[in-house]
Amino acid sequence: MSTQPKLIAAGRVVTCDPGRATPQEPLGAIEQGAVLIEGSCLAQVGLAADLLRQHPEAARIEHPDGTLTPGLVDAHTHAAWVGSRAREYAMRMAGAGYEQIAQAGGGIVASMRAVRAASLDEMVRTLVARLRRMAALGVTAVEVKSGYGLDEATERRQLEAVARAGEDASLPRLVPTFLGLHALPPEAAGDRHGYARRCAEWIEGIARDGLARFADAYVDRGAFSAAQARIVLARARELGLGVRLHAGQFADVGAFELAAELGAASVDHCEHLSEAAALQLGEAGVRAALLPVASFTLGQAPPPVETLRRAGVRLVVASDANPGTAPTESLPLALALGVRSYGLSVAEALLGATREAAASLGLPTGVLRPGAPADLVLWDLPEESAIVQPWGVPRVRLVMREGRAIAQAS
Amino acid sequence: MSTQPKLIAAGRVVTCDPGRATPQEPLGAIEQGAVLIEGSCLAQVGLAADLLRQHPEAARIEHPDGTLTPGLVDAHTHAAWVGSRAREYAMRMAGAGYEQIAQAGGGIVASMRAVRAASLDEMVRTLVARLRRMAALGVTAVEVKSGYGLDEATERRQLEAVARAGEDASLPRLVPTFLGLHALPPEAAGDRHGYARRCAEWIEGIARDGLARFADAYVDRGAFSAAQARIVLARARELGLGVRLHAGQFADVGAFELAAELGAASVDHCEHLSEAAALQLGEAGVRAALLPVASFTLGQAPPPVETLRRAGVRLVVASDANPGTAPTESLPLALALGVRSYGLSVAEALLGATREAAASLGLPTGVLRPGAPADLVLWDLPEESAIVQPWGVPRVRLVMREGRAIAQAS
Repeated sequence: MSTQPKLIAAGRVVTCDPGRATPQEPLGAIEQGAVLIEGSCLAQVGLAADLLRQHPEAARIEHPDGTLTPGLVDAHTHAAWVGSRAREYAMRMAGAGYEQIAQAGGGIVASMRAVRAASLDEMVRTLVARLRRMAALGVTAVEVKSGYGLDEATERRQLEAVARAGEDASLPRLVPTFLGLHALPPEAAGDRHGYARRCAEWIEGIARDGLARFADAYVDRGAFSAAQARIVLARARELGLGVRLHAGQFADVGAFELAAELGAASVDHCEHLSEAAALQLGEAGVRAALLPVASFTLGQAPPPVETLRRAGVRLVVASDANPGTAPTESLPLALALGVRSYGLSVAEALLGATREAAASLGLPTGVLRPGAPADLVLWDLPEESAIVQPWGVPRVRLVMREGRAIAQAS
Repeated sequence: MSTQPKLIAAGRVVTCDPGRATPQEPLGAIEQGAVLIEGSCLAQVGLAADLLRQHPEAARIEHPDGTLTPGLVDAHTHAAWVGSRAREYAMRMAGAGYEQIAQAGGGIVASMRAVRAASLDEMVRTLVARLRRMAALGVTAVEVKSGYGLDEATERRQLEAVARAGEDASLPRLVPTFLGLHALPPEAAGDRHGYARRCAEWIEGIARDGLARFADAYVDRGAFSAAQARIVLARARELGLGVRLHAGQFADVGAFELAAELGAASVDHCEHLSEAAALQLGEAGVRAALLPVASFTLGQAPPPVETLRRAGVRLVVASDANPGTAPTESLPLALALGVRSYGLSVAEALLGATREAAASLGLPTGVLRPGAPADLVLWDLPEESAIVQPWGVPRVRLVMREGRAIAQAS
């Protein structure tokens, strides 16, 4: 990598740095701003005029009509899927419910079959292509869950695919999450407790081999109970993994309480959430990850965003990329839906896909400030509200991970 | 251009040919199908096995997991805009209404200012970049309206920009529409009738110089009346132009009746449409162009799709790409919203963006059948229902206009 410093100047630099936030500029934006990159990190953030004067030696990228933001961080995805559930999607659009789809051979178990049949190479190839498309949209970090294996070997193969893709520095950085408790595999013959106990055994080796940084569980009506999730997630905690939860998508069956008890990094979905649960999350410092593409696909009402705000819960917005309920690869589309359908402000949406998402994953990215990794996006758009419009196409000029271009406009 | 025939084989070939449609396959799909391209046209459409055997001399592109469809046709766009109205978008998301936005300097007149200030070169450059992004999504034909000039010179400059971009065979084919009656320019000082009379004069030169194939007018509450529109559109008919109408977005003020009277090619928006109006459209053979991104942005209820179906009105689905109420460049996203929010079937959505859209524009494209131009998309998706999922990214392997690649997966 070149040792020459790089200077990127833009009409607007949206730092997302809380140290720069003001009531007028909640995103800590700098008009006519710039960043200086040395090696893989940001060395300076400030006014373009100052940085240009101080660093005549730097290589320059200037976009006076563009906006510079931190790289987007997608904190909830099932991106390691293979196969398609498009026919199920069409059934759902035509009004079919969850059970009807399951009876027709759809649902998570359909993806399980495709994933079990796929080789490691095939999984890696599909994931890498998907991550390149995500990078082109401005995404520089992606959480990827297992959960389509549902047996030890295939759960591990999914996580190994994530590890393999994660070695490629020309892709977004990856955060692997073990989601054994995603659905009950047919061979478990209805025994959810027994399956949870097996997942708690698998996680030993997964943690030992560094294959996951988090454990997640789908706790809901028709999915796993909080008690079943505790078997896996408490063990995950003991092994040093972080915890996330699929919580309240269809009903609050105790996932929020468990999340607060375990100090979870995030509770994800939250369509069904009481005021009491929100207060618990707020006190425990658990973030809420909102997934607007899933509620769009399912035709659901939004989560109680105002209740979460009042309880002081920090909001994350993620794509939920998955082949069933959120067949998307676009975090920007999730932001557009979050703003339009959930009533998020532009600042909430953007912080939820940068600083708050990164914090929920334990990443040092998501803000533009000295010392942070140079993960950033130079948008071909004049201001942050344009980023949350429903473009449906990449609108970036340049996407960098650690100071290196991983996508650019053709 | 090479004279060697090309053969494209796909797991599924969705012809959209009414001659092949059956109750089971309303899109006339062929499993394991293929097309043979000779020069710029389709020479044969059939089973891959047959075509491969009959044409060993042809260059082959085979995608057994992919889907081949006609190129998408975007029949309603304002794609020749420059500038951004992102701040207005943020205001709208925060609950601001039309008048509040107009008072803050937003709305169509804001784009008028940006467009009047732009040179022809700048317009062409912006339009070409946008059309390339559209092509990457599978779009091979785009209707583009004027309507941000609102004086003769600038309306002509917008249409000249479309003509210039239209000379580039590596872009989608373009259909220019004169939309002088888009908004009232400030210098008209409230005189809508006088402005309509001036538009009817401008259209003489526009038609003479071949700068437009259609004339359009925005007839609605707060916009132009049917009587004002008739002044322009009746003249357009006399001059040999086709007619389209922005109709019933906020109220039915007589646009549908006028459309039936003039034999319009389409009425666009249709959120507010009575059963009687639908029957009139059905009898007159006027198509309805639905614009789901606009009603998404505006938070509107869907148009009465079932009423349109019952009246036998053929449906078109378009992006409405514009900087205010549909800041998108994605026809596939419009299809996803049409299916989810309007209750369109997958077949209705796809026909509305291929055969019906092309027919409404008088184009010979939108179907895969011998003799038709080889405008087509090879999707990296296994079936047509996957095309209407909200990917938010291009999912094509190859896009061809007249047998020539205009976009492909990187």
